[in-house]
Amino acid sequence: MTDLTLAKSLKIITAALAKGKELDLKPLSVVVLDAGGHPKAFQRQDGASMMRFEIASGKAYGALAVGAGSRWLNAQAETRPHFLEGLSAVSGGKIVAVPGGVLVRDRKSAIIGAVGITGDSSDNDEICAITGIEAAGLTADGG
Amino acid sequence: MTDLTLAKSLKIITAALAKGKELDLKPLSVVVLDAGGHPKAFQRQDGASMMRFEIASGKAYGALAVGAGSRWLNAQAETRPHFLEGLSAVSGGKIVAVPGGVLVRDRKSAIIGAVGITGDSSDNDEICAITGIEAAGLTADGG
Amino acid sequence: MTDLTLAKSLKIITAALAKGKELDLKPLSVVVLDAGGHPKAFQRQDGASMMRFEIASGKAYGALAVGAGSRWLNAQAETRPHFLEGLSAVSGGKIVAVPGGVLVRDRKSAIIGAVGITGDSSDNDEICAITGIEAAGLTADGG
Amino acid sequence: MTDLTLAKSLKIITAALAKGKELDLKPLSVVVLDAGGHPKAFQRQDGASMMRFEIASGKAYGALAVGAGSRWLNAQAETRPHFLEGLSAVSGGKIVAVPGGVLVRDRKSAIIGAVGITGDSSDNDEICAITGIEAAGLTADGG
Repeated sequence: MTDLTLAKSLKIITAALAKGKELDLKPLSVVVLDAGGHPKAFQRQDGASMMRFEIASGKAYGALAVGAGSRWLNAQAETRPHFLEGLSAVSGGKIVAVPGGVLVRDRKSAIIGAVGITGDSSDNDEICAITGIEAAGLTADGG
Repeated sequence: MTDLTLAKSLKIITAALAKGKELDLKPLSVVVLDAGGHPKAFQRQDGASMMRFEIASGKAYGALAVGAGSRWLNAQAETRPHFLEGLSAVSGGKIVAVPGGVLVRDRKSAIIGAVGITGDSSDNDEICAITGIEAAGLTADGG
Repeated sequence: MTDLTLAKSLKIITAALAKGKELDLKPLSVVVLDAGGHPKAFQRQDGASMMRFEIASGKAYGALAVGAGSRWLNAQAETRPHFLEGLSAVSGGKIVAVPGGVLVRDRKSAIIGAVGITGDSSDNDEICAITGIEAAGLTADGG
Repeated sequence: MTDLTLAKSLKIITAALAKGKELDLKPLSVVVLDAGGHPKAFQRQDGASMMRFEIASGKAYGALAVGAGSRWLNAQAETRPHFLEGLSAVSGGKIVAVPGGVLVRDRKSAIIGAVGITGDSSDNDEICAITGIEAAGLTADGG
């Protein structure tokens, strides 16, 4: 398994924030979690609201929890809301099931971490996460 | 950033309660939180029920969490209930997503705190919060 | 039982803060809880640190929990620390067992609420709580 | 009050990690919290163990909670362990009361955030935090 180093994590964040600037998005917050769901790096842009670490982490944690980007979790809300409720409960309340939590895969497709972004629309958040992951030479999986 | 002083917080509460009296509302409870979500001042009128501090704080905390008045959160309940559920979970159960949590902005539009009111209808609660904030010379943002 | 009204609660806070000013204490935070442990009123002076609502409430809640001012709880720490630990646990983590949580009694000695103060030394916090309660014509019981 | 921007937060982290390298310390984790206790930025060096975000945040959060660097909290353990236990409980388990949580003050001595570092000895963690804060032109207060 490739390691998701701090250097790569910072490259992901820098590229994601550059994409947000290019698209003229609202202030973003970006977290990188390792494969075990533990934070490697985080940045919250000036003007972003108070609870953005928790929201960004909730998207990324949810993706790692089920091995699918949080877009997949979001789709579950239509058909199986009780699954999401149970998942949130057994996670100890750590999951936010909307797009913007993107798995990071290495060349052999192994999950080596996840990126969570919040601040603009969920779709735009996800675009920035994918851009950041690919800028670091890794594979993004939005779900 | 302008500071939300105790003196201004008390002015907000006094004006909000006066508005409630003018409109002949039920007993109100009013909290003022600073920009970080920590209480500056609180008053619960006689006859108000037991858990009003938590409800008032939950409205104001939710507004600060996402940088939008709690009326915006309330609207999410129609389209994305699973987002609210996730938000509540990652906040540690600190959010009440109905109108009556109003952001306090300074002249440069920076968020310097939030007011939460509960006791009458959510719409009336919000009216009193807005009245209180404006009476203190600040800008109210209901969402 | 006499009711601990909002008017009396505010009188307690005002007198307590005046005492703090007279003694030239650090910024204080004062909470008044009703007999059920639920907040009636709270004020945090400018310059007081972030978590003062929780600390002030923890002192007052502890006093109500055992029917003795929090000075009594503080004394237990010497002889029975495991009692305090158990008490904290069964309260759901709501108790701070140092002086400054003072019971409010009516003329018949019934407990009608508690005042919690934090910001200066625990002894000075307690002096201000007692001063505030007596200024409202009620009886203070520091433990 | 001066804002603790993301740019300044990153400058603090970079300088703190450079100090760690200069002193040949173990892998460090550094968090910067704003004045309300919410994360602005975080970095965990490669080789650092799993729960370092929580430990670093616990030091910084404790400092903000009481308005004193976490070295002060650490000293309370000798004289008033039951105070620390109560403080931890009412914080919801968010405080780690050992050195390495350092307040960030602006020119007027207002608290604008806190830095928490973990990974080496608590004393060395604190040295890196102070170095980082001063490199950003701000004032460090270790407690």
